[in-house]
Amino acid sequence: MSVLVQKYGGTSVAGAERIKAVAARIAATRRTGRDVVVVVSAMGDTTDELIALAHSVTPDPDPRELDLLLSTGETVSATLLAMALRAQHCPAVSLNGVQAGIRTNNWFSRARITAIHPDRIWRELAEGRVVIVTGFQGVTDEADITTLGRGGSDTTAVALACALRAELCEIYTDVEGVYTADPRVVPQARCLPAIAYEEMLELASQGARVMHPRAVELAEVYNLPIRVRSSFTDAPGTLITRGDAVELRRRVQGIAHDTDVAKISLAGVPDRPGIAHAIFAPLAEAGINVDVIVQTASFEGVTDLSFTVARGDLAKAEALVQPVARQIQAREMASATDLAKVSIVGTGIQSTPGYAARMFGILAEAGINIEMITTSDIRITCVIARRDVERAVQALHAGFELDRE
Amino acid sequence: MSVLVQKYGGTSVAGAERIKAVAARIAATRRTGRDVVVVVSAMGDTTDELIALAHSVTPDPDPRELDLLLSTGETVSATLLAMALRAQHCPAVSLNGVQAGIRTNNWFSRARITAIHPDRIWRELAEGRVVIVTGFQGVTDEADITTLGRGGSDTTAVALACALRAELCEIYTDVEGVYTADPRVVPQARCLPAIAYEEMLELASQGARVMHPRAVELAEVYNLPIRVRSSFTDAPGTLITRGDAVELRRRVQGIAHDTDVAKISLAGVPDRPGIAHAIFAPLAEAGINVDVIVQTASFEGVTDLSFTVARGDLAKAEALVQPVARQIQAREMASATDLAKVSIVGTGIQSTPGYAARMFGILAEAGINIEMITTSDIRITCVIARRDVERAVQALHAGFELDRE
Repeated sequence: MSVLVQKYGGTSVAGAERIKAVAARIAATRRTGRDVVVVVSAMGDTTDELIALAHSVTPDPDPRELDLLLSTGETVSATLLAMALRAQHCPAVSLNGVQAGIRTNNWFSRARITAIHPDRIWRELAEGRVVIVTGFQGVTDEADITTLGRGGSDTTAVALACALRAELCEIYTDVEGVYTADPRVVPQARCLPAIAYEEMLELASQGARVMHPRAVELAEVYNLPIRVRSSFTDAPGTLITRGDAVELRRRVQGIAHDTDVAKISLAGVPDRPGIAHAIFAPLAEAGINVDVIVQTASFEGVTDLSFTVARGDLAKAEALVQPVARQIQAREMASATDLAKVSIVGTGIQSTPGYAARMFGILAEAGINIEMITTSDIRITCVIARRDVERAVQALHAGFELDRE
Repeated sequence: MSVLVQKYGGTSVAGAERIKAVAARIAATRRTGRDVVVVVSAMGDTTDELIALAHSVTPDPDPRELDLLLSTGETVSATLLAMALRAQHCPAVSLNGVQAGIRTNNWFSRARITAIHPDRIWRELAEGRVVIVTGFQGVTDEADITTLGRGGSDTTAVALACALRAELCEIYTDVEGVYTADPRVVPQARCLPAIAYEEMLELASQGARVMHPRAVELAEVYNLPIRVRSSFTDAPGTLITRGDAVELRRRVQGIAHDTDVAKISLAGVPDRPGIAHAIFAPLAEAGINVDVIVQTASFEGVTDLSFTVARGDLAKAEALVQPVARQIQAREMASATDLAKVSIVGTGIQSTPGYAARMFGILAEAGINIEMITTSDIRITCVIARRDVERAVQALHAGFELDRE
């Protein structure tokens, strides 16, 4: 029998009525004769509330303890969903990360799945039950509970779908699918019927919150089709696949934007080998993700270097870079947080001349200054002032005619 | 190094400030050089809130799912307490039921501890850490999470103390210790400096909420001293031990009362062998605890039979007894819920003439009618009208002069 994996996000299970509605949807799917494995996030804002609770006790909660604390959020929603399914006469059982066999390394708060031992899941499916698995969590070889970091439930769902050789992984959320831009910013934004893994990956990495990039990456490796859809409607949503024909399309698929951007700039950095390593190695060791890096051409042996990090990492990053800046005798160090990123994403756009120029032209016409630029194979990203970001997204969406099919 | 086990109840960890205060107390104990293992209940009313959450989804939650849900309550308090200890520079780690090696049978919602494998606890103690263990929960051989039933955290604490060969198990609660009667009913009630296991057992079984009878029973088997004390003060509390000298005291130690009493009466029951078994076997199978049983002398081959159960079990008990009553041709079946029990407890009172008569006399003088009477070696219990219970406790407390040392 073919296995279907469904993942329901926090808003889809935020409250008893929502849980019952989700249970009805799952029970209907089960009646079509497929084996169903469901991955759930914590209800609504539970994770944030648990983090706040930890901070009410200490400003700096121990990561191991925090992970064990946060793991309770998904256990609550998973057990409630299993109860709701049973109340609708659909046999169901909930399994936590340990019971579902989701093994991880011991990087607390950002653990990586190392293996999945789905013996118990297979056994429960063979008994005719829908299996509800807590997302976001796993267990180390030492029996410690870990969490996979924000968006980890998507990763749990995709990893389980791969391990169970599922036909499809459905990601249920509170929007209808993947849009050409954030519909809250661009009312004309369209829901895309299909998108390629790498396009989704770039959109997700550049601020589109609909799916976690790690999960997309994993799905691409195993060539697992994903359907992103709403748990509130019956709309078909967006299918994420390898999409071979997409390669030839050479058009902008979507606009992503992200306001979680902070910048550190070093002026007057001696331009010699090893400098970049000296600056970025401590950040990497501390697990701080550096996003955009821009270095100006060297002039008289010194250069200017800027890079961006998430705003939550800024204080930590500054503390790490400060001593290095002194050591390498940089002239000045500065930081800024009033920034945003806006990106255009589409397979082939980087290999096709004109897209970058068109993007810069649209922004210039809108009077928006570009602070930094970075590109990938299928993406062009500009760092701009945060106050300009909504106008930038709207201008780009119109300029690249994304409101048309 | 000697091990001390401390258990903190729900009111002791109800909120961040209380958790920090408890952490300070634990850290101070740790500094005296002892190994400390702490068992915690869920914060405040968490367990009741989780039960209400389950009932918002279904009127009849599956016991396995409910246990997994409820187990999150203790995980939250345990992790917060470990964080608070670390914030006070006291190394600490929290362990859930699985990690602490607390194995149980699969009687969900009322599981029994079958074994404790404290390897991880020993390892953490050897690393110099205070070990915080989630009370009330365990794990079956099939890796399912169970709960031990209400008051189960006391049982966890005592069982762990026995397994770790602890010198002492301290039960921290919101009262100063074991009182001669409920101080809310009898303002003159005294806190007892010491009490024997069996006296505590009778008091706990008969409604004194300070400690769970299962835990007292277990402590008695292993001869583990228990100290019941308040987490809000430094008062020494009450020491529960074998108390050999106590045996000779022959006095009433305390008054217990309980309003969670419902009665089922069968009138005109044929008095022949096997009748009692026919009535009580189905109740036992359903896990319903029958407390007081009274059967009148047989007259013309028929007898009247009454027994009490907890009020929450009444509907279920009636449904089970109804068909049996028909089958054995009992003349009538009736039930009542407006009852209460009041008990006097003390080693040797049953073997000493006069205590029962004095108890009945005190109640008669107060104009309180006795509906049923039951006795054990060290206890005499009367079932009375619920509206009389406070007056009965006060009259007995005064009558047996329990306000005097």
